[in-house]
Amino acid sequence: MISINIIGTGNVAWHIAAAIQTTSTHRLQAVAGRSENARNDFNSFTTHTTSVTVLTPADITMIIVSDDAIKDLIKSIPYKTGLFVHTSGSVPRSVLDIFENNGVFYPLQSFSKGVPVNFSKIPICIESKKKDNLELLTDLGFALSEKVTQISSEQRQKLHLAAVFVNNFSNHCFTIAQDICEENDLSFDLLRTLLETTAIKALTNRPDTIQTGPAKRNDQATLATHKSFLTHVKQQEIYTILSEAITSYYGNKL
Amino acid sequence: MISINIIGTGNVAWHIAAAIQTTSTHRLQAVAGRSENARNDFNSFTTHTTSVTVLTPADITMIIVSDDAIKDLIKSIPYKTGLFVHTSGSVPRSVLDIFENNGVFYPLQSFSKGVPVNFSKIPICIESKKKDNLELLTDLGFALSEKVTQISSEQRQKLHLAAVFVNNFSNHCFTIAQDICEENDLSFDLLRTLLETTAIKALTNRPDTIQTGPAKRNDQATLATHKSFLTHVKQQEIYTILSEAITSYYGNKL
Repeated sequence: MISINIIGTGNVAWHIAAAIQTTSTHRLQAVAGRSENARNDFNSFTTHTTSVTVLTPADITMIIVSDDAIKDLIKSIPYKTGLFVHTSGSVPRSVLDIFENNGVFYPLQSFSKGVPVNFSKIPICIESKKKDNLELLTDLGFALSEKVTQISSEQRQKLHLAAVFVNNFSNHCFTIAQDICEENDLSFDLLRTLLETTAIKALTNRPDTIQTGPAKRNDQATLATHKSFLTHVKQQEIYTILSEAITSYYGNKL
Repeated sequence: MISINIIGTGNVAWHIAAAIQTTSTHRLQAVAGRSENARNDFNSFTTHTTSVTVLTPADITMIIVSDDAIKDLIKSIPYKTGLFVHTSGSVPRSVLDIFENNGVFYPLQSFSKGVPVNFSKIPICIESKKKDNLELLTDLGFALSEKVTQISSEQRQKLHLAAVFVNNFSNHCFTIAQDICEENDLSFDLLRTLLETTAIKALTNRPDTIQTGPAKRNDQATLATHKSFLTHVKQQEIYTILSEAITSYYGNKL
């Protein structure tokens, strides 16, 4: 059994701990974090929840904290043995160079508290300079998921950027649509089928081949009417910029 | 059998004709359009494909042309008997007031050429001033779909605007993500699971409750890095505006 320490008690840490729990090859040795309350969320996964400074070494130590906390946090880890990885999409692997054995274990997914995920379908993007460590990460990856890919820090940062467009930005578009419905006594349910087929079509075709709508048609009358309906400045800005981008993309590739 | 004429030979006309074809209560009498080539796409649905000026009356005449073509087109229809509807999300019902019996039959979906749709799941939004006509449209609606809703022209325009956010804008975000992947030797397949769960999560939760990402966290370092990666001006603008909107939405509701 490969032993794993998790440092961090947020959503991503929770979902990874829950996934490790289901394997027969890896075991969660301890979970460390500052907040005792947050640590208690992990009581069903391990009996060892503690603070970082009293952690004991494990085969793999996973640092699952916010990007800007990584640099400071690693100074407080009381050991340097074993493999150290972080799980960030944006932070270069080299931030862990103070450890001889280091790497990245990036699950490409948006984790929300209390929303279950099927971990086996989540692509795991791994990186390490040493072959032994890559093997350890590959084994951990395949223990949790069907999809394990080796990519560089630079590629991972670009992938994270692309993921922001796929998830964060589209979800905010859904949110604005919901707000428009609620402001006009319309049920958001009316848009459920469209939302579903939007995703299905983008998954079964190249998204650039299935674009429709007034911006694609450069239908200036509808674009102007829509803008006049939008009462929030930010919504208006988003409508304008995205419509201009779509018109220019299809009229004249960016 | 209720007889139906379709005027228009584009994607929406094709998908509606295909759906009418499957009912036992409604029959496609004729399809009219200017282009003989385009009319030929409908040969499997009806033997009558013709030009508008020689159409003969039907119980329901569906005008399925681009928004800005409706006004001129209706002048060339050689009869005024029966119920006349258009299928536009944006055009008011009143544009058809030259016909005594008029209404709107708006299927809330994004139709792409050659991409099959499950019509029974598409919400049909109907509108008419007369009770008899509403009944005709309700019957046609339920012949094609499980979901038929009566909404006003004003609500329909707002719903169409919301649909632009749900479909057009999120699909363009997917397109940008695909372009970023291709420019960085990454397979867009890596983002498939995220795209799928983005939709599933928005369908099973309120989208505003599941927002994640650097803009939501107001993580200025990642936002700056991402902007520096984007080489296309339009992509940069979209990134900036959407991130600002998300940060402001969650820091301080719009």
